[in-house]
Amino acid sequence: MKFPFLKGETLKEPVKADIIKAWFWTEKGLYLLDQRKLPLEEKYLFCDNLNKIRNAIKKMIIRGAPAIGICSAIGFVIEFKNFLSSLKGEEFPLHKVEEEIGKISNLLVTSRPTAVNLSWAVSKMRKISLKFLENFKEKIKRTELQELYKLLEKEALKIWEEDIEANLTIAEYGKSILPEGGVLTHCNTGALATGGYGTALGIIRKLYEKNKIKIYINETRPFLQGARLTAWELYKLKIPYTLITDNSAGFFMKKGEISAIIVGADRIAKNGDTANKIGTYTLAVLANFHNIPFFVAAPSSTFDLGIESGEKIPIEIRSPKEVLTCYKSKIAPSKSKAYNIAFDITPGELISAIITEKGIIYPPYNENIPKIIKIS
Amino acid sequence: MKFPFLKGETLKEPVKADIIKAWFWTEKGLYLLDQRKLPLEEKYLFCDNLNKIRNAIKKMIIRGAPAIGICSAIGFVIEFKNFLSSLKGEEFPLHKVEEEIGKISNLLVTSRPTAVNLSWAVSKMRKISLKFLENFKEKIKRTELQELYKLLEKEALKIWEEDIEANLTIAEYGKSILPEGGVLTHCNTGALATGGYGTALGIIRKLYEKNKIKIYINETRPFLQGARLTAWELYKLKIPYTLITDNSAGFFMKKGEISAIIVGADRIAKNGDTANKIGTYTLAVLANFHNIPFFVAAPSSTFDLGIESGEKIPIEIRSPKEVLTCYKSKIAPSKSKAYNIAFDITPGELISAIITEKGIIYPPYNENIPKIIKIS
Repeated sequence: MKFPFLKGETLKEPVKADIIKAWFWTEKGLYLLDQRKLPLEEKYLFCDNLNKIRNAIKKMIIRGAPAIGICSAIGFVIEFKNFLSSLKGEEFPLHKVEEEIGKISNLLVTSRPTAVNLSWAVSKMRKISLKFLENFKEKIKRTELQELYKLLEKEALKIWEEDIEANLTIAEYGKSILPEGGVLTHCNTGALATGGYGTALGIIRKLYEKNKIKIYINETRPFLQGARLTAWELYKLKIPYTLITDNSAGFFMKKGEISAIIVGADRIAKNGDTANKIGTYTLAVLANFHNIPFFVAAPSSTFDLGIESGEKIPIEIRSPKEVLTCYKSKIAPSKSKAYNIAFDITPGELISAIITEKGIIYPPYNENIPKIIKIS
Repeated sequence: MKFPFLKGETLKEPVKADIIKAWFWTEKGLYLLDQRKLPLEEKYLFCDNLNKIRNAIKKMIIRGAPAIGICSAIGFVIEFKNFLSSLKGEEFPLHKVEEEIGKISNLLVTSRPTAVNLSWAVSKMRKISLKFLENFKEKIKRTELQELYKLLEKEALKIWEEDIEANLTIAEYGKSILPEGGVLTHCNTGALATGGYGTALGIIRKLYEKNKIKIYINETRPFLQGARLTAWELYKLKIPYTLITDNSAGFFMKKGEISAIIVGADRIAKNGDTANKIGTYTLAVLANFHNIPFFVAAPSSTFDLGIESGEKIPIEIRSPKEVLTCYKSKIAPSKSKAYNIAFDITPGELISAIITEKGIIYPPYNENIPKIIKIS
């Protein structure tokens, strides 16, 4: 057994789960691979309630827009189960259950602001709950709540499975349009950031099967998702890569070594403006200057059609400490002021195409995004 | 006494030496502030021979184009003194001295390839030596070599002093053309990188006297000269600053917070193409896209008029280890491939002006650089 901490617990996961495991979900709870500690330590952190899962999302123990969406759905199920266990008796006031659903939803949605996948997933779970509860008046029985629990568990697994399927489809679409040569990616968009396989990194995995590419990874300060996570995934998958500092991306483009740039997304507005990891905008400007195609890969759950443009996307500002340290080292005078903006907005005009599981979307985005994306 | 290790030794330094001390030169040797260890440790490393000084330059214990030029001149003096001490008798064959001068020069010049200030300073020292030796035939006396030693010591101090004066003049010129608002700098170009005061950072110090600016520092991976050294200098000078990751520079430009970018240089070709710390080119492209003026500040010793364009500037490639680690932490899987290019070339077309102690040089550089710069 590779993961002794599981002690014979039964895994809940989709059939197609990836060989890289960002988490294990069992009847006991959720074991999250602590992404703050990779690549030097591979430790799973056990979460058996909402607070622990919320905290794990806030602290980036688990991160990546699709991954935090799925883990929120799982967190929803786990907390609902805890709620059920906490109830005494066999019949309960309906409003108490509704309140609990509201509380769980709010706590999950507010754990991080930028990635829309989180509220998308939580909203799915909440809707299923409320729809189920509509069948009752004032009171609801334990057995009925157990029925709802089963429904929620099924939905969380479905969200997870559909994300993997979306990634595999995105990889096929991506393969069809990425030019041969060097490809540069930013942050981590692989199995650690999604339900499995990955979005931008999924395309890279797929392209590598045909040996068409040389892979460059931006280290992605301050959290070093490129150096610590993407490099770790490719290392596990035995796919060669070259790690570079974020500030040398321009050098490699000028040198002609980069044929395409591909990144993920945390939220895409109706006009194609894309919130993604800080540094993405800088890459898009560089790509524009060097006439290099710049692609975004994301499942449809990343689109927020209610938002007209990037200006309206809430951008998370994180602790300056993350800039004043680098992984395990302090790197600046202690009293330094630092500004740690977690995401930036890349205007749609700088994006050559957005690769989704529903198809490849080209500009003009205002017209084409609503045509292809219809969030259910 | 703030520096107990000096134990009453007599300092050799110009009158205007900066309050920030990158080194102390005494009759015993050179004490170099170990810049690899800043800002968490302030340790001076004692160098009393050429090998130690060469090693300190190679390992970036001391770095910055003007600083390694000056320290090479000092290293020349120290090694010449050691040579004198090693000689037995009172009269020596001239060719032996000439060979020693050649050996010292070659070892110093090959310690790092990109910064031209290094070979500029060493060439000055070598020329003075050879000119002095022209007065002799076949034999030279100890007392005469002692005279040469005095000349060399004087020249090294002159190179140092002139660099500080150049910086102060550059600061005045810079002050006259930098717009008000936020200024972003990259790497370290302060007292630690020069004879004192600084080039680009000298301008920033000068501007701050008038409180005209908000200072942004790019952390400057992989060696973190921005986070570790520039932040440390400004902290010591009680000048407020905001540290940002290199990849967020584009975000701050888009936000309108940056009115100018100012960087140093390691070598400037006749057409204005400028070799400087990796990441400079990326900043110049971003500045161009956002219509922000992009300035280079450098003393005339940084120009290499023998080189027509940037393509001919030798660029140092350093160990991948520096990318795979961050200050004191390993940050990527051990077997990762990484590419660590220490400098990039910014084409003259992306540079708004080059600020030197001989004046501000504007495009067309091919015409204006040779007019203003005449390397002695």
